Amino acid sequence: MTSVAVYGTGSWGTAFAMVLADAGCRVTLWARRPEIAEAVNTERVNPEYLPGIRLPETVRATTDPAEAARDAEFTVLSVPAQTLRGNLTEWAPLLPRDTVPISLMKGIELGSAKRMSEVIAETTGVTEDRIAVLSGPNLAREIAERQPAASVVACRDEEIARRIQRACHTDRFRPYTNTDVVGCELGGAVKNVIGLAVGIADGMGLGDNTKASLITRGLAETSRLGLAMGADPATFAGLAGLGDLVATCSSPLSRNHTFGHNLGRGMTVEETIAVTRQTAEGVKSCRSVLLLARRHGVEMPITETVVRIVHEGTSPRDELKGLMSRSAKAERR
Amino acid sequence: MTSVAVYGTGSWGTAFAMVLADAGCRVTLWARRPEIAEAVNTERVNPEYLPGIRLPETVRATTDPAEAARDAEFTVLSVPAQTLRGNLTEWAPLLPRDTVPISLMKGIELGSAKRMSEVIAETTGVTEDRIAVLSGPNLAREIAERQPAASVVACRDEEIARRIQRACHTDRFRPYTNTDVVGCELGGAVKNVIGLAVGIADGMGLGDNTKASLITRGLAETSRLGLAMGADPATFAGLAGLGDLVATCSSPLSRNHTFGHNLGRGMTVEETIAVTRQTAEGVKSCRSVLLLARRHGVEMPITETVVRIVHEGTSPRDELKGLMSRSAKAERR
Repeated sequence: MTSVAVYGTGSWGTAFAMVLADAGCRVTLWARRPEIAEAVNTERVNPEYLPGIRLPETVRATTDPAEAARDAEFTVLSVPAQTLRGNLTEWAPLLPRDTVPISLMKGIELGSAKRMSEVIAETTGVTEDRIAVLSGPNLAREIAERQPAASVVACRDEEIARRIQRACHTDRFRPYTNTDVVGCELGGAVKNVIGLAVGIADGMGLGDNTKASLITRGLAETSRLGLAMGADPATFAGLAGLGDLVATCSSPLSRNHTFGHNLGRGMTVEETIAVTRQTAEGVKSCRSVLLLARRHGVEMPITETVVRIVHEGTSPRDELKGLMSRSAKAERR
Repeated sequence: MTSVAVYGTGSWGTAFAMVLADAGCRVTLWARRPEIAEAVNTERVNPEYLPGIRLPETVRATTDPAEAARDAEFTVLSVPAQTLRGNLTEWAPLLPRDTVPISLMKGIELGSAKRMSEVIAETTGVTEDRIAVLSGPNLAREIAERQPAASVVACRDEEIARRIQRACHTDRFRPYTNTDVVGCELGGAVKNVIGLAVGIADGMGLGDNTKASLITRGLAETSRLGLAMGADPATFAGLAGLGDLVATCSSPLSRNHTFGHNLGRGMTVEETIAVTRQTAEGVKSCRSVLLLARRHGVEMPITETVVRIVHEGTSPRDELKGLMSRSAKAERR
């Protein structure tokens, strides 16, 4: 039986632990908070993040990072993007020497503008060709309800990607392998920014044509950035690019969408934060994405617009006029 | 002032006539039914297809195809895909010698499996490099409400595409040029088939992960067909591929979606036709698309599944199991 450690008990970490258990793995969840570990072990639920979902018997939880790591063939990381470096600095000495780290995280480190796999490599010393990323149209609640879904497992070493594929393939969860780690990570990080833009448009009362155009042009600017960073443009047309973006934008309950919606309705950033009592990942990532774009000399007009609205307080209505009044051009140029 | 003939008073033909008028053209709409021409000319509305929308003064209507054609620099065609050949055989002698045909139609001719621009070339004698296609995320109702939208004008002769771009560019409607006519036409035709598949999944109660996966894999199989037919794969990642598909799938009121939804809920094809009193374009096109796929040796598993459900009466639930249980593989292969 394959042993897997899953660090983080958010909705996606917990749902993916269920997939692994359904596929025949023994899973140990690391929980920061004792009451969540307790609920998992005694009541078989994660009441905070997946209320009403019964977890398989082969998912156990602990608050001890060393206990979670023991014998783990795979180490799944699903903590907040901005706390990963701190967490892994503490956990790195505990991980088994041959474990394969798998990132479920969708974000770019603030300040350094580093991808999650880069942070993992720096803190654990595992070489980048042995670090994997799992990404796709995977709304956690639906996965936990065992609705059918597809995903991408990316690792530069294709044999490792295939090992992970075998470890999480069930009759409801269909993982495809890919070797483009950079593309999968960028797709996941930028989709939060585009999701924010779609939320803003929805909040302004704009319809499905605008939404579809933002998704299309947003993916085009993501691909341009990816190409400049050495990713394969085809990845963005796949499940970890287009698929993830469409799933996020179809789900009006996502934090990015709600945050953008409030801005589109005319609230200020401060009012939105006050009302939702949380911030959205896209709010943090948009600046890092723009930093990467400038570093690589890539134009990203939608990301720039989101940064101006979110961090400089410009008006969505004025920004829209600016986007529409640019000169006419060819679709690819 | 540029004169444009628009043949067809469906919702999209009428809405695009409004865009042209807003951009400064004089537009003559050809209507099959006298009461629609009358309503346009006297009340400035198309009560059947765009109720509640006031048409600009520079849009006039006639039931005389020769009057519509007079001095038309552009001839916009927006009739049902399966009646185009019959219509154009009658109209061809009336069209000005230098007019540029622009197809708004999204379908493949039954039997011949020909694209609309091929039918136009055969019936009018206009060479294919002078025939244009307009396609994108353009739900007619939203365009008629003057919500912002983007679109693609494709013509092999890029100078002609730019002329059309100038004729329909407004502060709400942003056309991009492209030279890939085949890609734009295939994107428009196959999206109806994928829209039907998404409707079926929705009717089965499946969620946004499934929908996003169907859109992604559906676009992948469309690109494979396009590549085999000489289209540029990048077109499918653009507004006439991804954009149009996402807009259609976001709009639960589309005929394809409603038709698929009923099938997914367990109704038979006959019951669905009886209830909706109409059939959906994807129901007709899916067989032509599959014919093209076989002719070009391309695998299109989603299209095949739709053909089996719609034309052979197989069960959506059994088909889903089949799709999920295929062997694990790499994302691109």
